[in-house]
Amino acid sequence: MKNTPAPGLQVSHWFNTEHPIVLTDLLGKVVLIEAFQMLCPGCVSHGLPQALRVADTFGRDDVVVLGLHTVFEHHEAQGTREALAAFLHEYRIHFPVGIDAPSAAGSLPRTMSAYGMQGTPTLILIDRNGRLRKQQFGSQQDLALGAEIMALIKET
Amino acid sequence: MKNTPAPGLQVSHWFNTEHPIVLTDLLGKVVLIEAFQMLCPGCVSHGLPQALRVADTFGRDDVVVLGLHTVFEHHEAQGTREALAAFLHEYRIHFPVGIDAPSAAGSLPRTMSAYGMQGTPTLILIDRNGRLRKQQFGSQQDLALGAEIMALIKET
Amino acid sequence: MKNTPAPGLQVSHWFNTEHPIVLTDLLGKVVLIEAFQMLCPGCVSHGLPQALRVADTFGRDDVVVLGLHTVFEHHEAQGTREALAAFLHEYRIHFPVGIDAPSAAGSLPRTMSAYGMQGTPTLILIDRNGRLRKQQFGSQQDLALGAEIMALIKET
Amino acid sequence: MKNTPAPGLQVSHWFNTEHPIVLTDLLGKVVLIEAFQMLCPGCVSHGLPQALRVADTFGRDDVVVLGLHTVFEHHEAQGTREALAAFLHEYRIHFPVGIDAPSAAGSLPRTMSAYGMQGTPTLILIDRNGRLRKQQFGSQQDLALGAEIMALIKET
Repeated sequence: MKNTPAPGLQVSHWFNTEHPIVLTDLLGKVVLIEAFQMLCPGCVSHGLPQALRVADTFGRDDVVVLGLHTVFEHHEAQGTREALAAFLHEYRIHFPVGIDAPSAAGSLPRTMSAYGMQGTPTLILIDRNGRLRKQQFGSQQDLALGAEIMALIKET
Repeated sequence: MKNTPAPGLQVSHWFNTEHPIVLTDLLGKVVLIEAFQMLCPGCVSHGLPQALRVADTFGRDDVVVLGLHTVFEHHEAQGTREALAAFLHEYRIHFPVGIDAPSAAGSLPRTMSAYGMQGTPTLILIDRNGRLRKQQFGSQQDLALGAEIMALIKET
Repeated sequence: MKNTPAPGLQVSHWFNTEHPIVLTDLLGKVVLIEAFQMLCPGCVSHGLPQALRVADTFGRDDVVVLGLHTVFEHHEAQGTREALAAFLHEYRIHFPVGIDAPSAAGSLPRTMSAYGMQGTPTLILIDRNGRLRKQQFGSQQDLALGAEIMALIKET
Repeated sequence: MKNTPAPGLQVSHWFNTEHPIVLTDLLGKVVLIEAFQMLCPGCVSHGLPQALRVADTFGRDDVVVLGLHTVFEHHEAQGTREALAAFLHEYRIHFPVGIDAPSAAGSLPRTMSAYGMQGTPTLILIDRNGRLRKQQFGSQQDLALGAEIMALIKET
């Protein structure tokens, strides 16, 4: 678990929000970021449903849930806004989702690279002071995640 | 349950097969067709995993499993070969899959229209004589499906 | 898979039936026997629910489902009629269940011993001619079981 | 959610502990009590597995998990020590479990009656000061439960 300021989000397009999300605007709240790809089976069957449960379980004054579409493979298949818009519609994902900004030449998009993510799904927790407190690749149990989020909520 | 000759497949592109699949070439075998869309949650969580189980459970001399990508919504998001190729790769779908040929003007692709399918997923069973014996929209229990397939295998 | 006459059931008490079940009376039908213990977790979570699905999926003219309580451990805890009656009530098991008759001295009850069962759950299939066709210890997939039962139904 | 001192446990026999458990000895820790019956399907499939996950997720310095066998039906079937001992062994329940003391004449055991429980499973949470903070009949989601337990841990 890290304890450094969370890198800013570099997003080329946002869905489900009128204004772009800026992490520094969310200071005072706990932030959960679900980094995913729409063609990643573990994201579809586990990571995104869990993020939806978090959004339904905690109040928005305490916890903000964000999705981040970090395309690092199958760029042609997953890289269009239309494809992601259709995916979010079909899977009823209602929280804000940003498209991680592609980098100039390489394969990893910018935010994924700044956080040093290993793949998808990756779950990120940021505390009320904007510090990166958790970054986990792969799946996680609901019971432990609920406890971790509440521990961050209770911090002053 | 119908009992008429199964309409031919009208496919614009095939994956996972060297030659286009023609139903009349499969006379003598039971054929299961799983009609799906890659952005249809019920197809991803239920229909396609069940079709994979059928392919793993029955011998290829008895049962041929085919997928049919019947895009009738989100054409821009699901309509490209690259997107479907990436989807089949990520979900490890190894049986032959055809892209249902788009119609000239309307929204329903040609095979979907010829069969009168209501949506996705739709499961189709064709008997050894090429007759359409089952066409079901939505999900189905494994136990009953296993029995239905074996009943068709045992027909002479 | 065996192909010998199925040994007779040696049962000390029957539930959910007015008259004792005798296998030879069931000639002409396929018989599924689910051998279980009420304190066996794999029986409770998998074997018995599957047997209930079989009873609900196939017609009674074709398939008869029976339970057999084969107590070979925790005799004091599982050995009473009252305990099994309460278990069958709570888990809504409606098909006939027999208590495998305890043997004089040893630990294995009589029917379990006659069939040479290895433990619980054990699933047994008997064909229309009364021959033992399948005896499997542990769990089994619904799709394959549905096919196996239908194959026996279709035999003449 | 209540906020009164938790009634004491009235237990006729304890398993998985050398000494009887007294709630006042646990002051300073959060206590989860899983009230169950061994023949209650919802307890076996949901309540007890969840209690085991809680015991595995939180440290014993913070959270103590207890089971309480509250037999209010099928007394003859569930009422013996031998039956419960076998059940705990087969389901690998390793935390302390007490048999709720039967009352003189009525049907409800003493602790169940003192807490006013409606049935099984019932999940109870007691805070570090020995106050009853949650009592829920039926099932509960892991995410919310993890958060509730952590909120009690963080209280001073």
